[in-house]
Amino acid sequence: MPRMITIDDIDDLAIGSTFLGTGGGGDPYVGSLLCKEAISQYGPVPLVSVDELPDDANVFSVAGMGAPTVMIEKLFSVEYAHVSVSALEARLGRTATAIISAEIGGLNSVTPVAYAAMRRLPIVDADGMGRAFPSIDMTTFNVYGVSCTPMALSDEHGNVAVFDTKSSKVAEDLARPLVAAMGAATSLSCYPMTGVETKRASVRDTVSAAIAIGKAIRSNDNTVLPVDRLLAALKALPYYGRAYRIFDGKIVDIRRDTSRGWVFGRCAIQALDGPSRADINFQNENIAVRVDGELRAIVPDLVCIVDRETALPIPTENLRYGQRVAVIGCSAAPSLRTPGALACMGPGAFGETSEYIEIESLNGSDAKEG
Amino acid sequence: MPRMITIDDIDDLAIGSTFLGTGGGGDPYVGSLLCKEAISQYGPVPLVSVDELPDDANVFSVAGMGAPTVMIEKLFSVEYAHVSVSALEARLGRTATAIISAEIGGLNSVTPVAYAAMRRLPIVDADGMGRAFPSIDMTTFNVYGVSCTPMALSDEHGNVAVFDTKSSKVAEDLARPLVAAMGAATSLSCYPMTGVETKRASVRDTVSAAIAIGKAIRSNDNTVLPVDRLLAALKALPYYGRAYRIFDGKIVDIRRDTSRGWVFGRCAIQALDGPSRADINFQNENIAVRVDGELRAIVPDLVCIVDRETALPIPTENLRYGQRVAVIGCSAAPSLRTPGALACMGPGAFGETSEYIEIESLNGSDAKEG
Repeated sequence: MPRMITIDDIDDLAIGSTFLGTGGGGDPYVGSLLCKEAISQYGPVPLVSVDELPDDANVFSVAGMGAPTVMIEKLFSVEYAHVSVSALEARLGRTATAIISAEIGGLNSVTPVAYAAMRRLPIVDADGMGRAFPSIDMTTFNVYGVSCTPMALSDEHGNVAVFDTKSSKVAEDLARPLVAAMGAATSLSCYPMTGVETKRASVRDTVSAAIAIGKAIRSNDNTVLPVDRLLAALKALPYYGRAYRIFDGKIVDIRRDTSRGWVFGRCAIQALDGPSRADINFQNENIAVRVDGELRAIVPDLVCIVDRETALPIPTENLRYGQRVAVIGCSAAPSLRTPGALACMGPGAFGETSEYIEIESLNGSDAKEG
Repeated sequence: MPRMITIDDIDDLAIGSTFLGTGGGGDPYVGSLLCKEAISQYGPVPLVSVDELPDDANVFSVAGMGAPTVMIEKLFSVEYAHVSVSALEARLGRTATAIISAEIGGLNSVTPVAYAAMRRLPIVDADGMGRAFPSIDMTTFNVYGVSCTPMALSDEHGNVAVFDTKSSKVAEDLARPLVAAMGAATSLSCYPMTGVETKRASVRDTVSAAIAIGKAIRSNDNTVLPVDRLLAALKALPYYGRAYRIFDGKIVDIRRDTSRGWVFGRCAIQALDGPSRADINFQNENIAVRVDGELRAIVPDLVCIVDRETALPIPTENLRYGQRVAVIGCSAAPSLRTPGALACMGPGAFGETSEYIEIESLNGSDAKEG
């Protein structure tokens, strides 16, 4: 009997994936309501590990693509998601036997669960990022040799486009303007995979990791402070275990520029007890944090801003002047730290001139840790 | 034995379709070279009338979609065209038995002939406009109930997108930004039709009409002036027979604004022998001509600017200050003049406040005609 995702897991999954979204990925609140409704209608969703997948499994992803700010206003529905997945199934002449999240960060962590419920299919305990990234090509699926296309993109009216492109970067470049023309909130199914490919190219155990992170943040255990509960939960997980409370302070400046389909910006945080200052820059997701000019964490390692009292993660669109926050950094999955992965989703992909340095090298001493 | 399109027909087809392009559609010169090469390699192309098509024929269109100014610089190839047509064939599970032009005006009149040669298929003596129009939905195929989608769009790298949309207008709205992302020069196959649908929804005999118009302009018969030869040829054709030399003069002003994927503009022509002045506005194609403020022809009737001495048609991108020109207007096919067609491609579709009035009503007296 596999583990089942029930209604009781959804709030944990939503909060945990907001943390893993590192500021981007879209607030999963509306998606979590959809998810609860789907589970109450169709029943709990089996969560299968990658190792449990048959080699010839047909694993289909489903995701929203667009501006998170629009996607949380237009109600996403599993019926819309079905337009893109079924177009891809028709194109391939194969029927999905399992659903996978392309991105465990934010909205795209919960909508696949709702869709899997409707299809009465299991959801794979894995994803293609182990976090959130702003573009389709930035996945381990791509880095480890799964083709992004055929890829189907659909809008809420049922219009659909199926792409075949020469690379996942081209798929991104061609889909992005179509997403804008479709109203900035679309349903996407891409990287169709076999079980063998899923075993090779996915980041494993990330759905259960997100649930564990969310559970720690939402815990009623008042004997431990929420940020400490979060750090303890991260340290207990295989990928995210090099976890650091990098900075505490209040937000003194926040700038956003929504252009070219993304939200670019930066956030400055002033220490509560001294002149020290942290600067975080983002493209949908947080890219890097520097404290008094010194690099302390950089993509693909995770940089997340959380509420200092509750440890609730704050998406970039909700950052406000005066908020008291903690900056948490943690290690990315090892498969994101290889030279091939760094070429695709390392600092250079975000216009950073700094080389990638592992978070544990930047925050190595035990004194700093935790 | 059907009539064959040979290399000797191509220059006539190119010039005639430039006239029918009414300023838009792209200069077919490069396309005509491609066409001659394809015919020399694969042999002449059978030109079949709509009535000769079996009811269950599979008629596929092929067209370039993009900025004509880019499309004449990037060399179009039949191999690129084949990417979109074969993607559509795969989507439908049907193989083309005949090729049709969606638009007889400009570049899109010759590329289907080249493609038909390569596929060793006949070309249908018909199209979906009987002229050129700036957007995919402005076809008789659409007006008379053929679905624009499934529709395939491809670029010169072999990237392809297959659309299914709820209307041809949506197909246009979604394809246009993708065309821009693909570099403004793409190959399109849309409105796949049976023989029955082609009989109902196409504008007939327009390939042979374009060849006849081109032949008249290019004739060596020096006993008749070129513009008079052109008018005589138009009057001998079923649709274009209400043909008028509306104005003669020199261009004194030309403005173009390339935005939103089209060329918008206006051209002013001053009479050679008095204060009279003609004004023509265009969106890729010429929309209307007014002489001293009085409407003399308006879309979907055809307005074409030709060289006053040679009768060679001048695309909007080649209009220059000081050119001596004649403005020729002629009637559109009757199927473009119905209320349903006018709602799709009449004056209102181009932001004109004038109602459609038939060119023969605006230039009714025999004194004006010819």
